[in-house]
Amino acid sequence: MIQVTLPDGSIKKVDKGTTPFEVAQQISEGLARNVISAKYDDITIETKTPLNHDGKLVLYTWNDAEGKKAFWHSSSHVVAQALEELYPGIKLTIGPAIENGFYYDVDFGEHTPSDKDFATIEKKALEIAREKHDFRMREVSKSDALNYYKEKDNTYKVELIENLEDGEITFCDHSSFTDLCRGGHIPNTGIIKAIKILNVAGAYWRGDENNKQLTRVYGISFPKQKELTAYLEMLEEAKKRDHRKLGRELGLFTFSQKVGQGLPLWLPKGAALRERLENFLKKAQKKAGYEMVVTPHIGQKELYITSGHYAKYGEDSFQPIQTPKEDEEFLLKPMNCPHHCEVYKSSPWSYKDLPIRYAEFGTVYRYEQSGELHGLTRVRGFTQDDAHIFCTNDQLNEEFKKVIDLTLYVLGSLGFDNFRAQVSVRDLEKPEKYIGDVANWEKAEQAIIDAAKEKGLDYVIETGEAAFYGPKLDFMIKDALGRNWQLGTIQVDYNLPERFELSYKGSDNESHRPVMIHRAPFGSMERFVALLLEHTGGNFPLWLIPEQAILLPVSEKHEKYAKKVLNSLENNEIRALIDNRNETVGKKIREAELKKIPFMLIVGENEEGSQTVSVRRHGGEDHGSITVEQFSDLVSNEINATLKSF
Amino acid sequence: MIQVTLPDGSIKKVDKGTTPFEVAQQISEGLARNVISAKYDDITIETKTPLNHDGKLVLYTWNDAEGKKAFWHSSSHVVAQALEELYPGIKLTIGPAIENGFYYDVDFGEHTPSDKDFATIEKKALEIAREKHDFRMREVSKSDALNYYKEKDNTYKVELIENLEDGEITFCDHSSFTDLCRGGHIPNTGIIKAIKILNVAGAYWRGDENNKQLTRVYGISFPKQKELTAYLEMLEEAKKRDHRKLGRELGLFTFSQKVGQGLPLWLPKGAALRERLENFLKKAQKKAGYEMVVTPHIGQKELYITSGHYAKYGEDSFQPIQTPKEDEEFLLKPMNCPHHCEVYKSSPWSYKDLPIRYAEFGTVYRYEQSGELHGLTRVRGFTQDDAHIFCTNDQLNEEFKKVIDLTLYVLGSLGFDNFRAQVSVRDLEKPEKYIGDVANWEKAEQAIIDAAKEKGLDYVIETGEAAFYGPKLDFMIKDALGRNWQLGTIQVDYNLPERFELSYKGSDNESHRPVMIHRAPFGSMERFVALLLEHTGGNFPLWLIPEQAILLPVSEKHEKYAKKVLNSLENNEIRALIDNRNETVGKKIREAELKKIPFMLIVGENEEGSQTVSVRRHGGEDHGSITVEQFSDLVSNEINATLKSF
Repeated sequence: MIQVTLPDGSIKKVDKGTTPFEVAQQISEGLARNVISAKYDDITIETKTPLNHDGKLVLYTWNDAEGKKAFWHSSSHVVAQALEELYPGIKLTIGPAIENGFYYDVDFGEHTPSDKDFATIEKKALEIAREKHDFRMREVSKSDALNYYKEKDNTYKVELIENLEDGEITFCDHSSFTDLCRGGHIPNTGIIKAIKILNVAGAYWRGDENNKQLTRVYGISFPKQKELTAYLEMLEEAKKRDHRKLGRELGLFTFSQKVGQGLPLWLPKGAALRERLENFLKKAQKKAGYEMVVTPHIGQKELYITSGHYAKYGEDSFQPIQTPKEDEEFLLKPMNCPHHCEVYKSSPWSYKDLPIRYAEFGTVYRYEQSGELHGLTRVRGFTQDDAHIFCTNDQLNEEFKKVIDLTLYVLGSLGFDNFRAQVSVRDLEKPEKYIGDVANWEKAEQAIIDAAKEKGLDYVIETGEAAFYGPKLDFMIKDALGRNWQLGTIQVDYNLPERFELSYKGSDNESHRPVMIHRAPFGSMERFVALLLEHTGGNFPLWLIPEQAILLPVSEKHEKYAKKVLNSLENNEIRALIDNRNETVGKKIREAELKKIPFMLIVGENEEGSQTVSVRRHGGEDHGSITVEQFSDLVSNEINATLKSF
Repeated sequence: MIQVTLPDGSIKKVDKGTTPFEVAQQISEGLARNVISAKYDDITIETKTPLNHDGKLVLYTWNDAEGKKAFWHSSSHVVAQALEELYPGIKLTIGPAIENGFYYDVDFGEHTPSDKDFATIEKKALEIAREKHDFRMREVSKSDALNYYKEKDNTYKVELIENLEDGEITFCDHSSFTDLCRGGHIPNTGIIKAIKILNVAGAYWRGDENNKQLTRVYGISFPKQKELTAYLEMLEEAKKRDHRKLGRELGLFTFSQKVGQGLPLWLPKGAALRERLENFLKKAQKKAGYEMVVTPHIGQKELYITSGHYAKYGEDSFQPIQTPKEDEEFLLKPMNCPHHCEVYKSSPWSYKDLPIRYAEFGTVYRYEQSGELHGLTRVRGFTQDDAHIFCTNDQLNEEFKKVIDLTLYVLGSLGFDNFRAQVSVRDLEKPEKYIGDVANWEKAEQAIIDAAKEKGLDYVIETGEAAFYGPKLDFMIKDALGRNWQLGTIQVDYNLPERFELSYKGSDNESHRPVMIHRAPFGSMERFVALLLEHTGGNFPLWLIPEQAILLPVSEKHEKYAKKVLNSLENNEIRALIDNRNETVGKKIREAELKKIPFMLIVGENEEGSQTVSVRRHGGEDHGSITVEQFSDLVSNEINATLKSF
């Protein structure tokens, strides 16, 4: 008998050789039906792998990230078999699961498949899947493995095997197909009910541009056809909502080859939108006791030697800025914390002054490979809505609660209501990984968990996910397309106060080290605006949207009245414009719909006579003819409903 | 007879050999008494230099910058003579006039004078001055000049003479003293009535730190004793108002050795003050039709090759930022215009869209030698309140008038009422110095002059002071200490639109080049705040000052009432704080005075009973007991009186 510990801490005594699938059966038939992958002592295994010693078992279904990984990795085997059957003589290389689906890198020789071949590949792969082949792992000696692939003339697999130790090499078989593989499969191919080849792209063997270019075949698969349909619909919607497309259409930002890749230029409407976001947060931060500071975008080498960044400043970064003075060099700032530590250090502090909260919309620069740049989500320069709180250990819980309040206010005011919190704590078994006093860590972790509890957050605790310098809390947001984004990190830091030798005088008249909290509800203005664009499809909350209303005069003779109305709207702080082109109202409405302007105010004979405006909502809802005052109330009521008090 | 043209264009026919002094006599005896220097055909001459050909004569008195220059340069001869007499064997090097006074660099050998010797030097110099020695220039051959200084064993003067051409060397004699000199003296030493040695400092021979260190003796002199007294008082006041001292005392900004010299860190009060200034300008700019943009703090080499900056980016600059990609390099941006050109270029424009006005509080970085750094006035990173207007040639006059309006609003709201404008135009005799179409230049210069006239500015036209790329208008501000600052430049630019190939489609459907105007009413936030600190001595205008009022409870039992009042003040958007330390009201008042808080609100028994506050103004004025509403009116009336409507 061996002891199998389950995630809830319960222990099952089972016969040696029992498989994860059998353990699942002992728990419930329902679970057993759905288990598709497992980990034993943190190592991915098959559901049919016999358990031969005491250990910790985790069972995964399709609903778990690990389950999906096994599902997609297994699907890549099936697709590889289909490709081999359809394109005899091709050479397979590697085929991992990725965040959404899987890929297989293939040397197709002469013939590379294109879009029009995708349906054939999908059909063939699905035929194989429907045959319900089991995935079976087997050990193989290095020489047998080499011989197998040498016979197939596959130099890629040969190269992979040559770098493996004899005794550690495994193959996976299903149907007539065999692949070099470390494992992590679903029980059989029959579970795969829907397969889609998404696209093909060039990829260098081992990611090295000096090597041969292979073809990367991207695909995704699901246990139900309707899940694939939903996914493809989501992809279609995501394409429509692509922030790069919307950003261009709405005139928010642009890029310039001359200025440089990954360095956004915010156009007037985008800059104004960003400023509204910043002012919204500034106002809330002021109420929450933050003080703004302004620091430069560069810092001397010495600053980053102290902070520890200099040691990590490698060849893949923006290189240091030399000056005429030898030995004087500057770095573009990759983060704002070292500067804020120096601001803190510019004065002596007493425990009565704490907490001190420095906030800055600080623009930082980090070099990213050009291939990794993506619109506003992956850039080389971005502005963090950064703040650093310097407090005592005893103040951590209170400060965490305040930051949670602020973050919830921010998320709520911007229409994000689907999220959960993740608390990242130490791995107690690896104390050497963490710096700082153990008692302080315990206090800090407890303070965060208590704060999450007290604020009623839906949270999970992730052991071992803490940074080496402190525990943290993240918000994991689900957007309108069901995609997850990490936002609003609140990070405890014991490291920088130590490195910068920060201190305050305690009530005992002794010098103490403050704790530091890093936090940024938006994360970065660039990424947040991108997220907001894709979440809302450009239909920003009313308080934030560039133009709240557009006046549509029925004909030229109503322009004067329209201007008068515009003036009243501006006095009521409503952002509006007039479309006084010589076009029909119908055309003007269609174009205003495309521009996503929330309210269309039609003014013609009747409206001018009754001193009203006919209000049509984006999407079509009709609010009838009302006065400017009534319209202004309509707008402020909607804004107040979103921007709750803080 | 020769023809002498005077600045007003009038022509005097005088005998060949007539001196500037004699010309002055012909104009008026009063002028002759005051003339101390002259220029003939733009070359500085003595008042006794005979005029031998037709030319343009300008006569200078003490009231002209050129007159002061001659006065101070002549004074340096007198002080040099005094030094030689007091310290026999010293070696004189160079002794020019500077902005305020003069200096003489001297190799004193063993004995260097210090503060306690200043009075002796002043006394001796004044004795010499009172003897009314004429300054007399004479030509000297190179060999005679070399012999003279070789005999005196003065290697410095020998080195200077060796670099001069024979036939161009002159000496100046007065009393028993002779100096190598190009000229530019007052008629005689007797005009110098007051001399002050200000300080001594080290200075390398020829400014090269590899050379010997000399002693720079700084002095100043005046034609009247009372002018010296006033100057010394001003110096004393300037010391009190030094923005570095006030900035520290008021907690506005700090510097950190680790972050780097010349890179200010704005502390909470300074950052808030700066934000108020920015918001003030933003609001006015919005009304004036500007749109904000946001651009990064770096730009690729290609951007600056296009703009022409790269060619000028020398060894004395921040060096380019290398990246992992060979041939991809970035520069810290030294100005915002190239980025704004790229923003303009991101869309096609029609003449109907112009003018386009892009504004940005853009932080730029320029390397300055550490010895040249000075508080916030000379820094390595600063934020310009920058804007670029893209318009047609025909719109220049209108745009200039609008920018003048904006600048006058800014200066007026900040208490600068002593200024004049300077219009810098081409030198018509050197057309090769300027780029761009002559017709456009004429139009632009006329547009600026007309705008200055129409706006009723007190302006002067400076010929030849235009940049190579366009004419400009500057505001020359006199601060409370009588010092001049250049602010609010409005610069026409024909160069960048050309280099960036900017265009718009005209009403003729053809492509045209827009004109660009650069403008910055504050110049830079850093320099402007420094200027404002020194101009106001920290007593900022009420709308801008960090704390507008401080509540002073008479004793602990009035704290609750004080808090209630504070709350009302905050609701009225008055920035206030409470001094609830256990100190006497007298002490609290004295400290509030030091902090320069405009209003002290004393709350005690009587005030609480009558629900009022006793208002004392910074400086002592008593406003009696009034309600919070009355106080709030007092504050807003004062603010409205300063912040005129725009």
